[in-house]
Amino acid sequence: MNYGIIGYVLVRLLRLEAGLLSLPLLVALIYQESWVNIGAFGLSIVLLLLVSLFPRKNKNQSMTFYMREAFIIVGLSWILLSFFGSLPFYLSGEIPSLVDAFFETSSGFTTTGSSILVDVEALSKSMLFWRSFTHMIGGMGILIFALAVLPKMASDGVRVAKAEVPGPSFGKLVSKLSLNAKILYIMYIAMTGVVVVFLLLGGMSLFDALIHAFGAAGTGGFSNKVLSVGFYNSRYIEAVLGISMLIFGMNFNLHYIFLFGNKREILKNEELKWYLVIVFLAIIFIGLNIKSVYGLGQGLRHSFFAVSSVITTTGYATVDFAKWPLFSRLIIMVLMVVGGCAGSTSGGLKVSRVVVLVKSGLSQIIKSRQPGRVQNISYEGEGLSEGKIISIQNYFMLYMLVLTVLILLLSFNYSDLETAISGALTAFNNIGPGLGQLGPSSNFSSLSDFNKLVMSLAMIAGRLEILPIIVVFMPSSWKKLL
Amino acid sequence: MNYGIIGYVLVRLLRLEAGLLSLPLLVALIYQESWVNIGAFGLSIVLLLLVSLFPRKNKNQSMTFYMREAFIIVGLSWILLSFFGSLPFYLSGEIPSLVDAFFETSSGFTTTGSSILVDVEALSKSMLFWRSFTHMIGGMGILIFALAVLPKMASDGVRVAKAEVPGPSFGKLVSKLSLNAKILYIMYIAMTGVVVVFLLLGGMSLFDALIHAFGAAGTGGFSNKVLSVGFYNSRYIEAVLGISMLIFGMNFNLHYIFLFGNKREILKNEELKWYLVIVFLAIIFIGLNIKSVYGLGQGLRHSFFAVSSVITTTGYATVDFAKWPLFSRLIIMVLMVVGGCAGSTSGGLKVSRVVVLVKSGLSQIIKSRQPGRVQNISYEGEGLSEGKIISIQNYFMLYMLVLTVLILLLSFNYSDLETAISGALTAFNNIGPGLGQLGPSSNFSSLSDFNKLVMSLAMIAGRLEILPIIVVFMPSSWKKLL
Repeated sequence: MNYGIIGYVLVRLLRLEAGLLSLPLLVALIYQESWVNIGAFGLSIVLLLLVSLFPRKNKNQSMTFYMREAFIIVGLSWILLSFFGSLPFYLSGEIPSLVDAFFETSSGFTTTGSSILVDVEALSKSMLFWRSFTHMIGGMGILIFALAVLPKMASDGVRVAKAEVPGPSFGKLVSKLSLNAKILYIMYIAMTGVVVVFLLLGGMSLFDALIHAFGAAGTGGFSNKVLSVGFYNSRYIEAVLGISMLIFGMNFNLHYIFLFGNKREILKNEELKWYLVIVFLAIIFIGLNIKSVYGLGQGLRHSFFAVSSVITTTGYATVDFAKWPLFSRLIIMVLMVVGGCAGSTSGGLKVSRVVVLVKSGLSQIIKSRQPGRVQNISYEGEGLSEGKIISIQNYFMLYMLVLTVLILLLSFNYSDLETAISGALTAFNNIGPGLGQLGPSSNFSSLSDFNKLVMSLAMIAGRLEILPIIVVFMPSSWKKLL
Repeated sequence: MNYGIIGYVLVRLLRLEAGLLSLPLLVALIYQESWVNIGAFGLSIVLLLLVSLFPRKNKNQSMTFYMREAFIIVGLSWILLSFFGSLPFYLSGEIPSLVDAFFETSSGFTTTGSSILVDVEALSKSMLFWRSFTHMIGGMGILIFALAVLPKMASDGVRVAKAEVPGPSFGKLVSKLSLNAKILYIMYIAMTGVVVVFLLLGGMSLFDALIHAFGAAGTGGFSNKVLSVGFYNSRYIEAVLGISMLIFGMNFNLHYIFLFGNKREILKNEELKWYLVIVFLAIIFIGLNIKSVYGLGQGLRHSFFAVSSVITTTGYATVDFAKWPLFSRLIIMVLMVVGGCAGSTSGGLKVSRVVVLVKSGLSQIIKSRQPGRVQNISYEGEGLSEGKIISIQNYFMLYMLVLTVLILLLSFNYSDLETAISGALTAFNNIGPGLGQLGPSSNFSSLSDFNKLVMSLAMIAGRLEILPIIVVFMPSSWKKLL
């Protein structure tokens, strides 16, 4: 294990966080907030810079690193960035518990959007800005940062990417992601800017537009309103955010191809096709199911927003879908598991994995009728190797194991199954609100401190596709150091 | 498709059912029941014999058949046996709805033990006997019957076995099952007899002892008491049934080896080891969790019986575990999915599959640290091939897909998640009671007729490990005939 390189990268990331914290500091100055807030941001920046001076043992140390180091870097950096990112909330006293502040910041960086805040509107503007800005930062992830911070390690950057890129990699699309990191970064900011403009056109204030654009771009879901997007009660704003979320839930290479490449390639993308099919069917099914409550028109409107919000793992809400009939709630839970497309800012299993898993399940039926036939599961026009199928299925097994443990742990805080299952699903898939007692009209303040920490780690594990967090907590990873 | 052979085998099975119905007829005569009951059994027998005269097209027809025919035979036979087996209940008027009678009989033959009866004690003795005797018949399954009925097709019998034997086949153990079918059949009856004797020693009446021995041997769970085994409130009876269920949940080849073979082989059996580990841990976890309700001693007593009942997919109850804390209910649900050992009378995924699935999930963690290392999942002392792993994982995916559909369908009858999930789990894994509104103190009468039929098919699909039922309902299976 190359501990030197781990320290080197982490220090750079902490310095970057110090730099990023200057933005909310600026917000505090603009809105002429109290010295407590300005001090909280200032002190956090100073602390980050002090810590980042710390581990610089060898100057001429090896720049080679492998999967294990990459996992450790990615896992640790999300934990450390979340910890230091929570300091302003804690130091200013706006979130008086450090555990709560850590939960809120992990939720931000992992683009989950679950909140322990009972009244989000009581927060000051600078804190609200930082809270939502973590979505923006987390959205495109440490992937981009690692590649921007580590320009010298261009070839090794691919290994970091492998540990972090959301979703399984298929074909050319995702591999391009690491190659064009800077272009994607610019695209990401530009697209967020477009969302801001569209929201301003709907009459939102600049501050609210920024908050909600950050939440949509990172598929995070933090709002500065207790009622979330429901506060605005505007079809236009719901349409803008609904469509934005769906776009940010697509593979970013498709956006790149849309802007600069051969647009026909987009139509060939199998994941996109299934993504849109699932979204369409879910909107119809839920819309018909809640027709009796809202009428067909309003039912489809609320169904569209909820489906877009949940499948992209954003978590904005216009109405309290935890009160919908069980059938709709089940569809919501299925969407929670499915998640968005690989190579997007969304969480969940990812559509590509789900498609392969469903195909492999259905292949059993074909096999039963033609036992002699060779099993071929094709995806994106190519036959998948046995190794690839096993690796996706193994990931699903690991996903189910972690999920089971999370549900069991939540059973110590809640007595009803729906709250426990949806709580685990919403944290692990980075959505935001759950169902039952954790629905959109509620929050996570009812969790015990222990479970707040567990759910924080679950959010990070879900965001990083489990393994980095497990490697960080395996004693064997640290054997030589201790 | 060889439709001739399908007709030939089905006719033989229907004749066998006619023969088996003479037993409850005898019970009706012994207890001097009304002519309605005697007539109901008599008419059912006559109908079965008439139908079995029907399809005899070719005398000299081919005796060759393949997987597809085997699936159709197995799938259709369970549906037909359940339908004709439900006639006595319906004709006697003791279960006035044919759908209810079909549900109850499917539940019996599949050794599920779910009931639509609000007051089981209102049934006459002959009906109660037939109801529980279906567990005995279903327990060792049409595997035994098919092999006993089809002596000419000894070599092809293996194919039928492959379509029906519960659980994935590993190594030598399960393959022996088809070879020693008759020995196993005798063992099964003898073991059931031993249970009857032990229950008689506990002061049970002969009738009650037969009913509960049938339920334990088939891991079915029908009782003739509304309170199930809780009626007796006897530690001795709970111990006898608890241990019996655990033994019937083990691979029958182990019993064979225990009686006639090298006993050391038993200790080497990995599935048995994990089965006992899971049972032990579940008893401890639940016992500690319900300590606050019952005290430690009583808590462990109730935990032992519930764990034994649920993991073996029997479904007897001594207390209403649907009222236990969520943590215990979650463990119960995990046990529902796990099920007993391959080659036993129990349902569920089977311990062997679960072990392989968990190992494959955990293998991801090892891989993350040593990416170069070849992945080897070993089971029963042998490395599993990629094909074997994929086939188990594919089965799990199919299992999850069917389960999701069942839960969605149940959401039209129930508004709470726990009832819908546990209802689907209990039917599909052949357990009996669920949780929520379908707990041990309740019954399935609240289902719609449509869902009663769906759950009946789910029970059969679960018992036959899904594929035969899917093949029966695929139009392409019947293309040439129609």
